[in-house]
Amino acid sequence: MSHHSARFPVVDAQVSPTGRMEVLSRTEAARLSSQGQGGLKETFRNCALAVLNCGNPLDDGKELLARYPDFDIEIIQRSRGIKLDIRNAPASAFVDGQMIRGIQEHLFAVLRDVVYANGDSSGAGGAAPGRFDLGSSEGITDAVFHILRNAGIVQPVIQPSVAVCWGGHSISREEYDYTKRIGYEMGLRGLDICTGCGPGAMKGPMKGATIGHAKQRIGKPRYLGFTEPGIIAAESPNPIVNDLVILPDVEKRLEAFVRAGHGFVVFPGGVGTAEEILYVLGILLHPANAAQPFPLVFTGPRSAEDYFRRIDSFIGDTLGDEARSRYRIIIDDPAAVAREIHGGIGRVRAFRKESRDAYYFNWLLRVEHEFQQPFRPTHANMRRLKLHRDEPKHLLAADLRRAFSGVVAGNVKNEGIREIERHGPFEIHGDPEIMGPMDALLSSFVAQGRMKLPGTAYNPCYRVVPRAREEAPSA
Amino acid sequence: MSHHSARFPVVDAQVSPTGRMEVLSRTEAARLSSQGQGGLKETFRNCALAVLNCGNPLDDGKELLARYPDFDIEIIQRSRGIKLDIRNAPASAFVDGQMIRGIQEHLFAVLRDVVYANGDSSGAGGAAPGRFDLGSSEGITDAVFHILRNAGIVQPVIQPSVAVCWGGHSISREEYDYTKRIGYEMGLRGLDICTGCGPGAMKGPMKGATIGHAKQRIGKPRYLGFTEPGIIAAESPNPIVNDLVILPDVEKRLEAFVRAGHGFVVFPGGVGTAEEILYVLGILLHPANAAQPFPLVFTGPRSAEDYFRRIDSFIGDTLGDEARSRYRIIIDDPAAVAREIHGGIGRVRAFRKESRDAYYFNWLLRVEHEFQQPFRPTHANMRRLKLHRDEPKHLLAADLRRAFSGVVAGNVKNEGIREIERHGPFEIHGDPEIMGPMDALLSSFVAQGRMKLPGTAYNPCYRVVPRAREEAPSA
Amino acid sequence: MSHHSARFPVVDAQVSPTGRMEVLSRTEAARLSSQGQGGLKETFRNCALAVLNCGNPLDDGKELLARYPDFDIEIIQRSRGIKLDIRNAPASAFVDGQMIRGIQEHLFAVLRDVVYANGDSSGAGGAAPGRFDLGSSEGITDAVFHILRNAGIVQPVIQPSVAVCWGGHSISREEYDYTKRIGYEMGLRGLDICTGCGPGAMKGPMKGATIGHAKQRIGKPRYLGFTEPGIIAAESPNPIVNDLVILPDVEKRLEAFVRAGHGFVVFPGGVGTAEEILYVLGILLHPANAAQPFPLVFTGPRSAEDYFRRIDSFIGDTLGDEARSRYRIIIDDPAAVAREIHGGIGRVRAFRKESRDAYYFNWLLRVEHEFQQPFRPTHANMRRLKLHRDEPKHLLAADLRRAFSGVVAGNVKNEGIREIERHGPFEIHGDPEIMGPMDALLSSFVAQGRMKLPGTAYNPCYRVVPRAREEAPSA
Amino acid sequence: MSHHSARFPVVDAQVSPTGRMEVLSRTEAARLSSQGQGGLKETFRNCALAVLNCGNPLDDGKELLARYPDFDIEIIQRSRGIKLDIRNAPASAFVDGQMIRGIQEHLFAVLRDVVYANGDSSGAGGAAPGRFDLGSSEGITDAVFHILRNAGIVQPVIQPSVAVCWGGHSISREEYDYTKRIGYEMGLRGLDICTGCGPGAMKGPMKGATIGHAKQRIGKPRYLGFTEPGIIAAESPNPIVNDLVILPDVEKRLEAFVRAGHGFVVFPGGVGTAEEILYVLGILLHPANAAQPFPLVFTGPRSAEDYFRRIDSFIGDTLGDEARSRYRIIIDDPAAVAREIHGGIGRVRAFRKESRDAYYFNWLLRVEHEFQQPFRPTHANMRRLKLHRDEPKHLLAADLRRAFSGVVAGNVKNEGIREIERHGPFEIHGDPEIMGPMDALLSSFVAQGRMKLPGTAYNPCYRVVPRAREEAPSA
Repeated sequence: MSHHSARFPVVDAQVSPTGRMEVLSRTEAARLSSQGQGGLKETFRNCALAVLNCGNPLDDGKELLARYPDFDIEIIQRSRGIKLDIRNAPASAFVDGQMIRGIQEHLFAVLRDVVYANGDSSGAGGAAPGRFDLGSSEGITDAVFHILRNAGIVQPVIQPSVAVCWGGHSISREEYDYTKRIGYEMGLRGLDICTGCGPGAMKGPMKGATIGHAKQRIGKPRYLGFTEPGIIAAESPNPIVNDLVILPDVEKRLEAFVRAGHGFVVFPGGVGTAEEILYVLGILLHPANAAQPFPLVFTGPRSAEDYFRRIDSFIGDTLGDEARSRYRIIIDDPAAVAREIHGGIGRVRAFRKESRDAYYFNWLLRVEHEFQQPFRPTHANMRRLKLHRDEPKHLLAADLRRAFSGVVAGNVKNEGIREIERHGPFEIHGDPEIMGPMDALLSSFVAQGRMKLPGTAYNPCYRVVPRAREEAPSA
Repeated sequence: MSHHSARFPVVDAQVSPTGRMEVLSRTEAARLSSQGQGGLKETFRNCALAVLNCGNPLDDGKELLARYPDFDIEIIQRSRGIKLDIRNAPASAFVDGQMIRGIQEHLFAVLRDVVYANGDSSGAGGAAPGRFDLGSSEGITDAVFHILRNAGIVQPVIQPSVAVCWGGHSISREEYDYTKRIGYEMGLRGLDICTGCGPGAMKGPMKGATIGHAKQRIGKPRYLGFTEPGIIAAESPNPIVNDLVILPDVEKRLEAFVRAGHGFVVFPGGVGTAEEILYVLGILLHPANAAQPFPLVFTGPRSAEDYFRRIDSFIGDTLGDEARSRYRIIIDDPAAVAREIHGGIGRVRAFRKESRDAYYFNWLLRVEHEFQQPFRPTHANMRRLKLHRDEPKHLLAADLRRAFSGVVAGNVKNEGIREIERHGPFEIHGDPEIMGPMDALLSSFVAQGRMKLPGTAYNPCYRVVPRAREEAPSA
Repeated sequence: MSHHSARFPVVDAQVSPTGRMEVLSRTEAARLSSQGQGGLKETFRNCALAVLNCGNPLDDGKELLARYPDFDIEIIQRSRGIKLDIRNAPASAFVDGQMIRGIQEHLFAVLRDVVYANGDSSGAGGAAPGRFDLGSSEGITDAVFHILRNAGIVQPVIQPSVAVCWGGHSISREEYDYTKRIGYEMGLRGLDICTGCGPGAMKGPMKGATIGHAKQRIGKPRYLGFTEPGIIAAESPNPIVNDLVILPDVEKRLEAFVRAGHGFVVFPGGVGTAEEILYVLGILLHPANAAQPFPLVFTGPRSAEDYFRRIDSFIGDTLGDEARSRYRIIIDDPAAVAREIHGGIGRVRAFRKESRDAYYFNWLLRVEHEFQQPFRPTHANMRRLKLHRDEPKHLLAADLRRAFSGVVAGNVKNEGIREIERHGPFEIHGDPEIMGPMDALLSSFVAQGRMKLPGTAYNPCYRVVPRAREEAPSA
Repeated sequence: MSHHSARFPVVDAQVSPTGRMEVLSRTEAARLSSQGQGGLKETFRNCALAVLNCGNPLDDGKELLARYPDFDIEIIQRSRGIKLDIRNAPASAFVDGQMIRGIQEHLFAVLRDVVYANGDSSGAGGAAPGRFDLGSSEGITDAVFHILRNAGIVQPVIQPSVAVCWGGHSISREEYDYTKRIGYEMGLRGLDICTGCGPGAMKGPMKGATIGHAKQRIGKPRYLGFTEPGIIAAESPNPIVNDLVILPDVEKRLEAFVRAGHGFVVFPGGVGTAEEILYVLGILLHPANAAQPFPLVFTGPRSAEDYFRRIDSFIGDTLGDEARSRYRIIIDDPAAVAREIHGGIGRVRAFRKESRDAYYFNWLLRVEHEFQQPFRPTHANMRRLKLHRDEPKHLLAADLRRAFSGVVAGNVKNEGIREIERHGPFEIHGDPEIMGPMDALLSSFVAQGRMKLPGTAYNPCYRVVPRAREEAPSA
């Protein structure tokens, strides 16, 4: 049944699981319907709405809830399993009154992960209470592993093939077409695609790979999408994603990428992309990871050359040449990128085999507790970052990552936007030698329109404050 | 590599998972290899040995360990997943040096369930610490559900089809052939078979059904085997079982049967079979279950008529006619039994649909806490049973069940056998009106050779002591 | 192994069947290797080369053979089946030295169909000698059926879903993108795509549908490609096609379309497209087909509106309003086209069910012998066409179809091009009332660049000669 | 709908294809319904009835038709494919009113093969007119290949695994159980089973293998049954057979066995078994086949030792020691038989690989025209056999084979029985040195009850006439 409203048409529907089947215990069903203590209703409802809103560019978490105030989702128990009763859902999720199957699967992926891993609504971090030991680095890694395993992502036997693609959700047509060509070339070489869901550089490679996979008759290609409740509204998964996982927070999502992926491609993007670059470089700079093969390519069409030159300079200025040695920049050559990743994954395979590490999960990669702990982007936390030249490089990378993470939150996340509305822009303090390049980089993002969706003016949510070390506020 | 010893030849092997794939976290693998606090090594090793010993009749848990003192099993991590390194395994698990695939699958089922559900070696009940709330009736049911779901037993969409078959592991050739004929007729009607694993009445229906399923081209027939660590050595799963689950204890195993099964067939057997009959009648006598359709047929060849007449009398004498109304006795008519179960499952289906209960798990069946709590068969606990005419019928059934359970333990379980060795036979006290029929029934089992495997003399592990109520010892 | 030549790099390879497996008898293998009487080597070699050349726009059958003079293909017998030994194949069929799987499948489809249906190299019509009775209308239809059945195209049980797409292989970027959008909308609605293979309007709908099918998780989408030895060099199948059939000649290919398809979409094209339109209208004008639902939509982007207006006028001028009533023109509305076809197929389904005709083959459609007999485009045959107003409409349509067919041959087919080289342009005679509109239509095709691939000048292979009836040459 | 008649209850039903789907052209459907020239109705009806009568021991082809005089089968065309409308079919083919799926598949296998290969009702040999050249040895082999390929039996890629089992349809319980044990051991080793359909030694190995395959989780085990219209009534395929092929006549059926099988086991049997033994030895004695590995084992329980001793003597007396060197006799050791066949198939595999012959069809085996030509068992033909010591051994084997073939026909085939009724027993003439052993062997078959089903008295259909060569009648 569809209703017609002026701007945002909605539809009611009942949907059954498709493909992977979900069975809930009575307790689990009750928690999904409960809004009280231990209840999961709100998280489930919000993520479900985001999934249903796919295809509608939007980068303001708050706005989605405002558009569909009457949206609701309920679990119905039937003899043959559960159904979802959905009201006032975005009409774009339907074709002639039928929900698109890919979106239907996403709804049940949301349900699965919210039950399994996002149990705690107390704000303490997300993962199901009691199930994991989130106080230790090993415990967090274990949680990421279990969430991926429960989602069917971790599979033995199969060969390494996961190419992670990072990049902006708001990119130009030319850049978007370029991401499709890269996906096509990777698909022709049998690589699977993993992205953060959402439009732009996260969708293009999957579309291209779909054509490549079809030509190669790859029967069960994998299009992995890793997201988290805070970003899913702005980066709604496109329905090609056939393995969607909702990790509990930003840090576990990033850890999922680096442990489940085998090769890494970075397309042009904005601050989110910079955050991902700094996260991965921070990890790779750790001495324990020095020997790990880790194929990492920055690429774009000719027009993106300047963008990557600036990123490269920024990395050189702040983290130095060792960091620069961990990636290659390839401009306007999709087949070369695909060959580079394909070959690199071959080296990853040999390394894992040699060291008896699993193909499906990079256990050997050292991810310091620093990179695992959730960062709440408050004004106080942002001000407290240590952006100094004399910090160890991988810790400096960690705090630079947090700085960009805060800007992402201020740009598109519900919580971050509210902070900014309440207290004004974040202040980011640090050595002038770091603040200078950072300001330049952020300004170039603004100038290139990489901060927001096209057609909207950007109002910066941050202020860069160069300051000598002694001036830093105490933690 | 095979070694030749005088009596029990052994083989070494490395095996990979087949069919369902298992992936372990580093923590899980460590626990399976550890014998200390929280370690699972011993349970894993013992269950694995039982699985490998299939096909060798044996009903003394102690003896198995004595036969293969050098048996060992280790987990090896490889890039494509885990392997098991097995030493000094019973040669009968192999054909020309290759492990039988069905047994290989059973090893990985053992691994899966020991990791998931049998975590606690402290003896407090078995299920993984922290995962379930075993203090409440709902919590125990939830644990049973989760263990079955984790094992892939609980599947939505498919129609009710599970025929549970109970009966002796030590039966005559004629009775065994009869169980095959029943299995064949049920297989022809598309029913799946669920038993407690092991030989005799637990194997025959599966063999028969295999032929019936082949003729009906049933692509993925299900042969479910539910066992528990205490009984698996004596009732080693036959390799036809393609969904093996190791529940943590007797009571959860029984609950798994009644919640996952749709129809129930009881063949001749010994005390174990009597235990199962009393368990199910005790539950069905609960007023909350009065409306539940629950197809239950006792059947055997002509020669078993007397056996069932005695059981029927015993039930009439102790639990009364209401209990007798919950089952049908059908002698020597396999097609009639199969039609009765098939029709009954049709009524179960209608009832579940009507009441919106799941086809795959009987949530509505009330199983009182009494029936869920593990019963440790010590001399004190056996003496304390309340076998009095004026107890509520379903509680009397519960204690009768425990009495038979104790005899089973004394006959074939490692722990029970040691108790008897140490303290002599169990004493079972109760009203003469109950103790009389009980003694008669047990004596008839001894006379009919239903207590032990053929060719061994039976030495009773119990003593029936009729006593008026006032004489009962206080709890 | 790859060789580098100045312009057309080539590769050697040995390939095994993938997907559908082919087994040859000794006799069949011998015929495929033989160039003499009854030998199939030349047809096999030429079609194989066309298949391997996919992705390289080319519309001159002669040129392909000139580009790869050393290309060769041999059958090798191995214990596990046959292999193909290929030398000097176009390098574009390979990715990093591996043949694209889709192309590999096409090679074996060529092999299958050449063995089964293209046995006769004598030119007498193509189908395997002795197997079919090609002298009767029923016999020809039977041959088409058997060829499709042997290719696995005719499948029972499945619902009608085949949307045939016709249109030019040489279209503008805007038109091409439009065909992708139509394909996408049809894919979202679960429709399968059938085209004549080749680039342009025959490739776009498949690419679009691939994305739509991925979003709908359609497990085994069908991309049917029907071609014939005379056209395959110019319209090399794109590798998305996963059910390729090589029919023996133009007429059987056209009959395959109308009998296996359920809905029909016509995009802008050139004379080939006009030929297809006249063929289908000629059949639909037969009184026996008056009651058949037959969804037929002409569609294109806004810029194609003029093109279809001209076609529509031409049909009105020559065949009249009854013909015009059998199609709908929809401009620039992909979702509307998909809905129209989807709905129309629903009516086809109802009609077939009602009349007990097969979903998988339109047996009831009357195709007159006139439309089935191969037309050899010689100067004499072209001159002999009866393009007169007073012919019965469906016979006039048949001869108009032949006229356009001759122009296609003169434009792109090996044999036709040689005829023109030898004897100059074809002369097409007829009533001025028909010749006028025909000349106008053909001229508009030339003006719009629809006669040849972009970037080549068109040199007409025909001359329109209006002439009153009495002037017609005798047959 | 079921009817009750005094002795032979019947059922009406409509059945659809299951598993492999069949699609008929209009012409094919018409021929199956036609009884006139080129019509296939009678063959189809008779074979269909035989298939439906499975499970009812019967060895007189005439009797079956008498039991079910009103049986009829019609093809119905529906939109989703064909259905069969069946009237007055044997009730034993149904379970609770539903036709057993295996039997349903057999009906459609009959349909497929009758259409494809048994087209000619003129009696000239069976295969579809025009399709094959039955005048040459190569042409007949080609026909066998095409019939098997059309039935999906000939499959590339898979490894050699087909163990052909020959033996009596009327054997003792002990012998039957032994054939099950052999099947079980072969199933455990992954071998597929091929027999001539029917009960006894043709059913036991399949039942045993079904259990072995289940334990080894062999997903798609193959149970091949090769039969022919003349024998199918007496040897109705058991429903475990999942690849049934109806070859046109005795000789093509035998050739199918030796070309599609990889290992050969002979159980005790009667004249049919002797016929098979002589057929295979005749072929193996040809010098061109001397180098071919061809695993051939005669086996039975201890009680069958005498039987095989007699066969062995007969072979020694008539064909000599070279013939005796081509088989092994193994008594009462199922695992040894399975290992012998399994190892022998390994040698077959190596030989085929080395000689590049197909795994799926033994092209290299020389089968002389002598062994391929249908033998019509008339009194004249029987009298004309050349059973002389100085014939070349492989030709003597051929005529001995024909002699036994004639006795089979006289025992159980419709046509043969009528001949005997009309003209009295066949006369078999030959050298006393051959006639002596032959008479002894046949007499021992009679004495051991191997000529007929248990419980029926045997009335010999032949008379052995020793006679010196010069007395032989002219051909």
